[in-house]
Amino acid sequence: MIRIAVLGAGRIGKIHAANVAANPDAKLIVVADPFGDAASSLAKRLGCHAATDCLAAIERDDVDAIVIGTPTDTHIQFMLHAIAKGKAVLCEKPIDLDMAKSVAAANEVERLDGRVMLAFNRRFDPTSQAFRKAIDAGEVGEVRQVVITSRDPGMPPREYVKHSGGIFRDMVIHDLDLARWYLGEEPVEVMAMASCLVEPSLSEVPDFDTVMLQLRTASGKQCHINCCREAVYGYDQRMEVFGSKGMLLQDNLRPSTIRRWTDSATDAREPLLNFFLERYETAYKTELTAFVEALRTKSAFPTSVQDGLKALRLADCALESAMSGKSVKV
Amino acid sequence: MIRIAVLGAGRIGKIHAANVAANPDAKLIVVADPFGDAASSLAKRLGCHAATDCLAAIERDDVDAIVIGTPTDTHIQFMLHAIAKGKAVLCEKPIDLDMAKSVAAANEVERLDGRVMLAFNRRFDPTSQAFRKAIDAGEVGEVRQVVITSRDPGMPPREYVKHSGGIFRDMVIHDLDLARWYLGEEPVEVMAMASCLVEPSLSEVPDFDTVMLQLRTASGKQCHINCCREAVYGYDQRMEVFGSKGMLLQDNLRPSTIRRWTDSATDAREPLLNFFLERYETAYKTELTAFVEALRTKSAFPTSVQDGLKALRLADCALESAMSGKSVKV
Amino acid sequence: MIRIAVLGAGRIGKIHAANVAANPDAKLIVVADPFGDAASSLAKRLGCHAATDCLAAIERDDVDAIVIGTPTDTHIQFMLHAIAKGKAVLCEKPIDLDMAKSVAAANEVERLDGRVMLAFNRRFDPTSQAFRKAIDAGEVGEVRQVVITSRDPGMPPREYVKHSGGIFRDMVIHDLDLARWYLGEEPVEVMAMASCLVEPSLSEVPDFDTVMLQLRTASGKQCHINCCREAVYGYDQRMEVFGSKGMLLQDNLRPSTIRRWTDSATDAREPLLNFFLERYETAYKTELTAFVEALRTKSAFPTSVQDGLKALRLADCALESAMSGKSVKV
Amino acid sequence: MIRIAVLGAGRIGKIHAANVAANPDAKLIVVADPFGDAASSLAKRLGCHAATDCLAAIERDDVDAIVIGTPTDTHIQFMLHAIAKGKAVLCEKPIDLDMAKSVAAANEVERLDGRVMLAFNRRFDPTSQAFRKAIDAGEVGEVRQVVITSRDPGMPPREYVKHSGGIFRDMVIHDLDLARWYLGEEPVEVMAMASCLVEPSLSEVPDFDTVMLQLRTASGKQCHINCCREAVYGYDQRMEVFGSKGMLLQDNLRPSTIRRWTDSATDAREPLLNFFLERYETAYKTELTAFVEALRTKSAFPTSVQDGLKALRLADCALESAMSGKSVKV
Repeated sequence: MIRIAVLGAGRIGKIHAANVAANPDAKLIVVADPFGDAASSLAKRLGCHAATDCLAAIERDDVDAIVIGTPTDTHIQFMLHAIAKGKAVLCEKPIDLDMAKSVAAANEVERLDGRVMLAFNRRFDPTSQAFRKAIDAGEVGEVRQVVITSRDPGMPPREYVKHSGGIFRDMVIHDLDLARWYLGEEPVEVMAMASCLVEPSLSEVPDFDTVMLQLRTASGKQCHINCCREAVYGYDQRMEVFGSKGMLLQDNLRPSTIRRWTDSATDAREPLLNFFLERYETAYKTELTAFVEALRTKSAFPTSVQDGLKALRLADCALESAMSGKSVKV
Repeated sequence: MIRIAVLGAGRIGKIHAANVAANPDAKLIVVADPFGDAASSLAKRLGCHAATDCLAAIERDDVDAIVIGTPTDTHIQFMLHAIAKGKAVLCEKPIDLDMAKSVAAANEVERLDGRVMLAFNRRFDPTSQAFRKAIDAGEVGEVRQVVITSRDPGMPPREYVKHSGGIFRDMVIHDLDLARWYLGEEPVEVMAMASCLVEPSLSEVPDFDTVMLQLRTASGKQCHINCCREAVYGYDQRMEVFGSKGMLLQDNLRPSTIRRWTDSATDAREPLLNFFLERYETAYKTELTAFVEALRTKSAFPTSVQDGLKALRLADCALESAMSGKSVKV
Repeated sequence: MIRIAVLGAGRIGKIHAANVAANPDAKLIVVADPFGDAASSLAKRLGCHAATDCLAAIERDDVDAIVIGTPTDTHIQFMLHAIAKGKAVLCEKPIDLDMAKSVAAANEVERLDGRVMLAFNRRFDPTSQAFRKAIDAGEVGEVRQVVITSRDPGMPPREYVKHSGGIFRDMVIHDLDLARWYLGEEPVEVMAMASCLVEPSLSEVPDFDTVMLQLRTASGKQCHINCCREAVYGYDQRMEVFGSKGMLLQDNLRPSTIRRWTDSATDAREPLLNFFLERYETAYKTELTAFVEALRTKSAFPTSVQDGLKALRLADCALESAMSGKSVKV
Repeated sequence: MIRIAVLGAGRIGKIHAANVAANPDAKLIVVADPFGDAASSLAKRLGCHAATDCLAAIERDDVDAIVIGTPTDTHIQFMLHAIAKGKAVLCEKPIDLDMAKSVAAANEVERLDGRVMLAFNRRFDPTSQAFRKAIDAGEVGEVRQVVITSRDPGMPPREYVKHSGGIFRDMVIHDLDLARWYLGEEPVEVMAMASCLVEPSLSEVPDFDTVMLQLRTASGKQCHINCCREAVYGYDQRMEVFGSKGMLLQDNLRPSTIRRWTDSATDAREPLLNFFLERYETAYKTELTAFVEALRTKSAFPTSVQDGLKALRLADCALESAMSGKSVKV
């Protein structure tokens, strides 16, 4: 039984805490959040301790592992504290918005031989897993092109955008991680274009709301990513892997399979599941299970701090390319 | 080169005449219709003779084969005249609305060793053909159940309904022919239910607008057919063949493959092709090709007068079952 | 907080017990099963008491409501004992395989003013709920035809079949309940056909493995149901509601949304979720939530003992029709 | 009645000639091809004159308009000769593989006030037309991103590749034309990546077989195009237009709507229509109709020589970007 402390009782912390509580091989010991009310009401519902001091929660003797779901700028502090105390960590991405700090943290993790899994939730989606399995089984042969569509249902508040690190580090980073995973090779070149088509005033931040990227690996494999902060039809998450023997597609999820036929349209499906918490509900569960399972069996984590670094570096390259109009070597 | 006379310059006659004219192995000699204007304008457009006397058109020396697209109550007369003159016939179904007359005509055709193909157009639809081919290739194993959905886009005029022979002989007969074709065995039992849900006053004709049937063959194979004279979303033609090794489904056709995503629906497809002339455009062409090909190669027709008789008998059994509330043995 | 005893620790009991344990408004007090090991291992996993005596479990002071997931022939005994003790009941269907016993039990429940919800799980499937909501909102206008496809992935063991009450009472009963629910009127006439196409020797039981039914309501609405004990492509659960203003379709569920494109097929989807436990996982959860919610808010149950009686009566009529070859008035 | 000469009796010439012959407002006068046998056999089948001298065919008095379907390097000569003789022209794209020659030809056409329509067949596909109409009707609001997938079923012969002008001018040019059409604004920036993943030895030509592009307009609208010379699952032609109010998708076409359900896959569709002649059969007809209609009504052509120039310029920019690794301003 892996005994776990969850740091953060916000949107993502709640998901993790509930998944820990429901996992038969894990035990939720404590939920910690500087906002005491959030922590205590969550703890009460899930039957565990509440705390306001995250560092103290990490240090508890009855805790083996830490799930970090606090704001991005606290990730490194808690991660390093946890491994210093010999605790394993599941940390929300990104490590940090700053590349240099992220590299330093990763080096420290390595120096201390710390065990850190980075929470790239989409890799644990059932269809993503089915993709990876099919690719590994040689179903598509040699991968040639990967196409990823990733559009959010609506613009986040301006305040959020300002502290987000920008669309590449905040949003596209997920798709960059998937690109690496599906390509099976590291991208060596990035080309990006970025516009403010949803909210022109976003350029004052400065940031973008609509972007396109293409990546190339050393052997010439290609990946296209398109993102937009707003799609009126909902949270659009599609993927395609095309290779020498075939192609795999991933569709979106909807609340039910109902299809409507009227005098103006036929076979119409429902709007998509609203956003990432709903769309990746199963993925979050599977991610937590993978974390617990790796701890239980003392095997390697499926995602590492290095994965976090590499995705962040690609995001930085994309931003540089969008600003300079040149392809950027990674 | 098969030289052909087309009788009837109405809706269906126009289709047949144009298909004859476009067929590289056939030559359209004459279009005949008592409504001289219809015949002559069609003939002018397609570059052939026009006639008002159908019997005379049949007798022309430069005509090898006759396509009958005139009103149902003239089918037998023209069919028998043609075979008496040694001409091959492609006749629109049904042979006649009356079973006894139809049987007598079929006997006469047989006595004279006449060559008659009955125009069950749906059998020539690309998907129907793909179904038949897949069944023959053993893809579904032993057929267990056939499910046919057949709904018209809107009620025909009351005058049409009065002379139609009723929904079973006019509309369901197509589906009964397909049922026989896919089951691969003759139905021996029919159960039917019939209602007036679109136009309650239709019961005064008397007729029905909404029906359900189920058929059983001697070995226990089953078929369900549902029909309605009106579907606001269009001409609905779906089929399913389920067997020991799998299932085949047939979808509807639409003008284009466009799919719309909006804030109220996703992946919505267009309304269906309006009605049988559009939906079975390719089927009519292939049917004519099959007729010409059989004549050219002196091989058997894919559909016969006997097929027409059998479908009509099933329609009569269905009507009897709907009226009596009992299963009817064929 | 509704305190609940779950009777039965088999396949379905495990589902109910886990759903009770995970429900924030319910507390799982005890799991009872004559097979003590099953009960105790389940109880241990979910953190509740275990018992071998179901009657004693019903009588516990700390229990408000009973979920009955034991074999069918024990349903009435436990149901009546529970309501005699003033406990609310969620009972797996059917009440009993025998109509007379079922009626007597229903009468007794009514006499004692007992609170019993019958577990027609499919009504709680998200798509079924979406259907009902859309029908209520007038989306399809007046319902004309309902079409239900319900095929199991494989034949149950012969021993199960012998005690199942036959395909109509064991399998089709679910579809009959849905038919009633979607038609919005009681069927007054049933026509059925039944064959042994999967296992001819099943006729010795006697039972059938492949059936087709059609139902009619007093106003002429129609419903078709087709069932088979074996479909090699999996547990096939499709539905269609067709009315004056449109149509609703329900598709099957699959483990992921992956679609495969190869040189022999395009857009191929995965095999279906194996069977009812997987396919209706969400439905079981929602059903339990509805039960708890009705108790919490002291409102009416969405499904009643009368619903169970009516579905059973339709199953009996279908069997009679299949044997007699006549339509049967309900 | 527009009297037409078709130049070229090869693959594409046959299509055009048959469409002219079947068009009720056009008359096919002559088919000309230096390969006399090809011309005469085609002419015989379609009932028109045959010729080996294309220039003479252009000059015939009984000819109003010319359809040019000869090899690319003859396009300019025939186009200019035709307009010099006062004949209207429908010319296969590209004008020429060389940008300078193409510009000079376009200038000459303009100087002579010649009437030339460039044959961008895909614009006339029913779904492309539906896209354009929906965009014009404001269905997607402001266009933000266009995504085009365009993969051929298999590598052309090496000899073809050598004279093709390269993948950008030969294949991608179609997609670049569509990009312009859907974006509704001229692209001002192009970024491209190109690899030899199907046949590594193609780099010796030099050419590429697998490419990705992204385009940007002055207002920031974006377009992604991905192409590959080989897709084992067939000729893949998909499109997507995403805007502020919604999204439109275009699916591929298949020979029938059959869907197969087996124990290893469900809902599997057929392989795609083999290649452009089958896939765009309707588009070629509609294109010819649009040409004839514009001549008949003396209205503007839907596609012009300028469209050809602009698409070619984008193709050249893409090649430059792929070679230099820099974004190229148009």
